Formats: sequence, structure tokens, C-alpha cells
Amino acid sequence: MSYERQLVTRLHAYVPGEQPQGGKVVKLNTNENPYPPAEAVMQAVHAVPAEMLRRYPSPTAEPFRRAAAKLHGVAPEQVIATNGGDELLRLALTAFVEPGTPIGTAEPSYSLYPVLADIHGALVQRAELEEDWSLPPDFAQTMNDSGANLVLLVNPHAPSGRLSTAADLADIARTLNGVLLIDEAYVDFVDPARAHDTLALLEKFDNVLILRTLSKGYSLAGLRFGYGIGSAALIRALHKVRDSYNLDAIAQAAATVALEHRDVAARSWAAVRAERERLATALIGLGMSVPASETNFLLAQNSGGRAARGVYEGLKERGILVRWFDQPRLRDRLRITVGTPEQNDALLRALQELLPGG
Amino acid sequence: MSYERQLVTRLHAYVPGEQPQGGKVVKLNTNENPYPPAEAVMQAVHAVPAEMLRRYPSPTAEPFRRAAAKLHGVAPEQVIATNGGDELLRLALTAFVEPGTPIGTAEPSYSLYPVLADIHGALVQRAELEEDWSLPPDFAQTMNDSGANLVLLVNPHAPSGRLSTAADLADIARTLNGVLLIDEAYVDFVDPARAHDTLALLEKFDNVLILRTLSKGYSLAGLRFGYGIGSAALIRALHKVRDSYNLDAIAQAAATVALEHRDVAARSWAAVRAERERLATALIGLGMSVPASETNFLLAQNSGGRAARGVYEGLKERGILVRWFDQPRLRDRLRITVGTPEQNDALLRALQELLPGG
Repeated sequence: MSYERQLVTRLHAYVPGEQPQGGKVVKLNTNENPYPPAEAVMQAVHAVPAEMLRRYPSPTAEPFRRAAAKLHGVAPEQVIATNGGDELLRLALTAFVEPGTPIGTAEPSYSLYPVLADIHGALVQRAELEEDWSLPPDFAQTMNDSGANLVLLVNPHAPSGRLSTAADLADIARTLNGVLLIDEAYVDFVDPARAHDTLALLEKFDNVLILRTLSKGYSLAGLRFGYGIGSAALIRALHKVRDSYNLDAIAQAAATVALEHRDVAARSWAAVRAERERLATALIGLGMSVPASETNFLLAQNSGGRAARGVYEGLKERGILVRWFDQPRLRDRLRITVGTPEQNDALLRALQELLPGG
Repeated sequence: MSYERQLVTRLHAYVPGEQPQGGKVVKLNTNENPYPPAEAVMQAVHAVPAEMLRRYPSPTAEPFRRAAAKLHGVAPEQVIATNGGDELLRLALTAFVEPGTPIGTAEPSYSLYPVLADIHGALVQRAELEEDWSLPPDFAQTMNDSGANLVLLVNPHAPSGRLSTAADLADIARTLNGVLLIDEAYVDFVDPARAHDTLALLEKFDNVLILRTLSKGYSLAGLRFGYGIGSAALIRALHKVRDSYNLDAIAQAAATVALEHRDVAARSWAAVRAERERLATALIGLGMSVPASETNFLLAQNSGGRAARGVYEGLKERGILVRWFDQPRLRDRLRITVGTPEQNDALLRALQELLPGG
């Protein structure tokens, strides 16, 4: 006999990228930062006292929220800490979306969004991105027409790497009837020369919610730590629907230290940007088409010859993992995380063997 | 303008027990184990390599689930690891409860259950416990009549400490139309002489789901680690609705080591049981009424004189935290976590001052 809801029976679970535990694979498939976290973070973990584990943690991640508020120039009441950015996404659906109504997204986008909608019993209103991966001009209006009360936009965009400007996002926030969640999972890798900053949007718009994560920028994917920044009213709603002790004591301590040592992480961002340019140039030299990316990955299209899936499999045989998505507009592309110089060289050598002109 | 769902506006958030961070308080209010976690657990935390944090963790907590399956004599497919027992409770609502229909509980019970129902948009069907805190004989039928597809029973019961037998639970599971979630948050403290074991229920009933946590028994409240055991079908449904990386790498590693060193934790259980008897006897000697408890706390009723709230406040002034609940049947009682002998002595000294006969 089945006890689960019909909604659950119909669910297709999210398929995470392969996460081989151990082994000597060149792992360029799930956008981890190739450089280690700050030494101070490891010291914090290695100094955790038994008493910190014996007792319950801060239910509201108070010290972390103070550190994040200070970093971003907002009040702690404007910050919620979450178990990875993914928890914040789920909480936003719980707090703002009535089951049976749609969330809004761009297509293609982070493949978790529609999975979260399915779990919540929500629908999905998709807006097809333009040829150059930019948002269509009528994006906000399309979302309003659908009745979406929550729109999820990953920016810089995944999987293309394209950055929408803060001005573009302001236009959308102004028009939208609902909440605009800007998923900034990759924002740390944006070239500082672009002076990209969405925090100022919070002063003008009470419907903007910014998602940050320590997974990529701070090399802490294993720690599961993200946070949201927005108006005190939005943040209060999210707090009301989260699990009461959603973050463990070690993660809270390590994440707080990570923010305090942002300068160490920032050096990794610069290194990734330098390698991103080198890798993009080399891929183009191999005959691939690669849109400009402001993230730590590149979306590479093989201009002819062998299909992307075959290249993905050929790389895997050579111990190199990249990501291939079996969906429209992505089937002929590979999403490649920018690795260390050595990892990128290994990738380029393998591609030279695999690509027709190589 | 408000963007949140009406359901969220109406929500009363769960109120966790006070969690003072630091200070010299005698903390007997949130049922932490008074003894530290196993040294091997701390060693595992202190040996965490940077690479473990840089990369994503196992999305399914594979090594932990294997360890738990081995301990309980079930298959890994019958285990789900969760961010504290609380996440398992939420997942059970998501997977098994249609919004608008009720969950079932006993009254009084763990105060988080109705909060989770409110967040999910579910109702609550309560069944009043008997005078001796046992379940009413028509419990399962009441739940069926209400249409509840999920019943949450904490056993041993909180906040009374009373244990329902596996035979009692089998009767309920047999009659229930829905899922019976047995919340065994405190089961590690049951006297082994009672030979209490609900795992055998899983062989007979496909609607039984057992919740375990490392928070109390393993002295790891700060780690946020729990798990569920049930039929592969129930567990599969829960996996489908959880966040894709719900547990961080450090917690997974530490929890696995904790189970492997269960013997260390078991020594703390014996020590808590011994102190539980001593403390109960002493409280009764102070004129309090204390039902037999199979947990690591006691529910003490002051037989006359000063109200429980005043005693709670008097203890707090003396640097001793216990729990007082402002609700029917509990207003005249204190829930007191069994501490170390020194903590219990401090409590008893303070009570001697505060109670009329003292």
C-alpha cells in the first residue's frame, strides 16, 4: 500500500552532478572553487570544542548574521542563514508561493528550480532566454501575467555565465508584482571592473531577495552554508518557515570565519578569473563557441563534428568530469568548471584528442 | 506591501528553549546529554581536511546510512539521514500529508508538531492523553476518523517521560490507515532491562517510520543529525522531497564515527539513568510528584504552594535553567533535564530554598 501523496509519486527527483568520493578524477562538473578554503576556516573547524557539539547551536545563527550584515552594510534583521543556498530557495517557495500557483524562471536555468516547484505543488512559468542568453524584454510582464508571486533568477546566469546588470534587474523588480529572488551563487567571480552591485536594489525595492552561498566563492561546498539578504519583512517570513535549528554549530562557526577572511577567498576569485580567460581563449582556439562568462564555469559549444555527449563521455573515460545536460539548447554544449591551471591543461589536452580538428 | 502567504502571516513560530551561548548557567532546559560526545567524534572533526569542505558532500549521506543500516540490521535503502530529527518530521509532512488534511498527535506532546503542521497548511487532530500520560484506547480509531495520513508519536513521551510498549505501538500501527512516525528522540535512555525494541515493527508494518537523533543519546545536539528508518517505499518518498544536499560533510563524517562508537554513548546513558533515579527520588522527597521517566528528563509537579512558573523563575535567578510550558496540564509542572551529579545537586539545593517545605 502506498502512503505518499500523489504529488510525490509523480516527482522526478533533482539529479545532482556526479560526486565521486575520493579517487583521482579531474572534477570540473559541479562548479566547486578549485582552491582550498582559508586556513583560518580550517583552524576554526579543528578547534571546535566538544561542548559546542554537546549543546544546541544558536537557532538563528546570530554571530554569522551579524558578520554578514556588517559585510554588506545591512541590519542583521535583513539576513537569514540557510543550509546551503538550496534551503533558501525552498523557504522562498514555502513563504511566498501558494501551491497551485506558478513560480517564474528563465529557461534554461538552474535545474533545481522546477524540482522545488514540483515538491511544493507549484507550477512553473518559464520565459525563454534570447539567443545571447539575455532576458527577454517582456520578462517581468510575462511573470505578472502568469500570476507568479516569486521569480527565481540566477545571475550571473547558469549555465551560460552571462551577467545581467543591476539596472536590468531594477527594471524587473520595479515591474514585478511578486518577489524577485536574485540567486547570486556565482557573483563572487564577476570581474570587479564591472562594479556589479545589487545590494543597492534593497534600498529601493521591498520585493528583492538576494541569495548568496559560501559553496563556490568561499570554497565551502562541503559545509552547506548560504544566506539571504532582503527587507526585514521578507526575511522575517523566511525565518518563520525554516526548521528551528537549521544550521549546525560547526558550520556556523566556520562560515563566520570565512566571511571575516573574505580577502583570502577574493584571491581565489582573481585566480579563477585569470584562468577563465585563458581557458575560454583556448577553447575558442579548439573551434568551440564560448559566451563571455562572469562565473567560474564556461558553457562551450562544439561548432561542428562530434556531439557534446560524446565529448562528455570521452572526457569521462579520461578521468575528467564536466557537465552535460540532456535538454533543449544545452544538448550540444558542455558546462565546464574553471579549474586550476593544471586541471585546465589536462582538459585542453583531452579535448585536443577528442575534437575533430584536434 | 506584503508578499508572504496568508498562512505565513498567521504563523506562530516555534519557540525553542533558551540557548544562552557561553556563560556559567546550569542548563537543564533542552534535554542535552550532560556528558561530552565520544573522543573519536572530536578526532574526526579535528581531522577534517580542507578538500572535504571544498567539494560537495555525498548527497545521500551514503557512508552514514551504511553504518546506521548495519547497527539496526536493515538495508541502507531503509535509512534516510536528516538535518536533525526536525528535518525528518518536516519531510514526513511534505511526503505524506496533503495541505488541508490533519496530522495526528497526542496532547500534550512535542510543541514543534503543530508548528510544522501550520507551516505545511495542514490541520492537527489531537487526542488527549490519559491521566497517567498513556495513549487513550481509541487513539488509532480517532486518528482514522479524522482522516489523518500521518501520526506523530514521541515515545518515550515528551514531556512526561512515559514509555509506550512496542506491543501498544503495534496495535496502533495495525489499526492506522496512515503512517505512524515513532519519534524516538529519547529512546537511548530507556532502561535496557525493559528490552524495548520497535525495529521489529518494521518487519510487520509498512506504515511505521522510526525517527532517531544523535542530539541527545550521542551528545551531538550541536551537530544537527538525525535519521529515519522504515520500509524502502516510505524512505524513497522522503528522499524525493528533501533538499538535494541536506547534510554537510563534517556532520556526515562525525555522525558516522558516533554510531561506530556507540559503546561510549551507552556509558552516558547508564550514567543518566542512575542520576535520573537519584534525582526523581530527591524531588519526591521535596514533595514533588514525578512520573516514572524513561528519558533524560523528569516532569516534576509541585504538589502545593508556589506555582511552577515562580519556581522556574526562581531557579533562573539562581543561574539554573529548566523548562516551563504555559499550556494546559503543564502549567503546574517543570520539565527538568537530568544533568551531571553536580548539576543535579545544584538544582536540588536551589529547590530546597524555593519550595515551601524546603
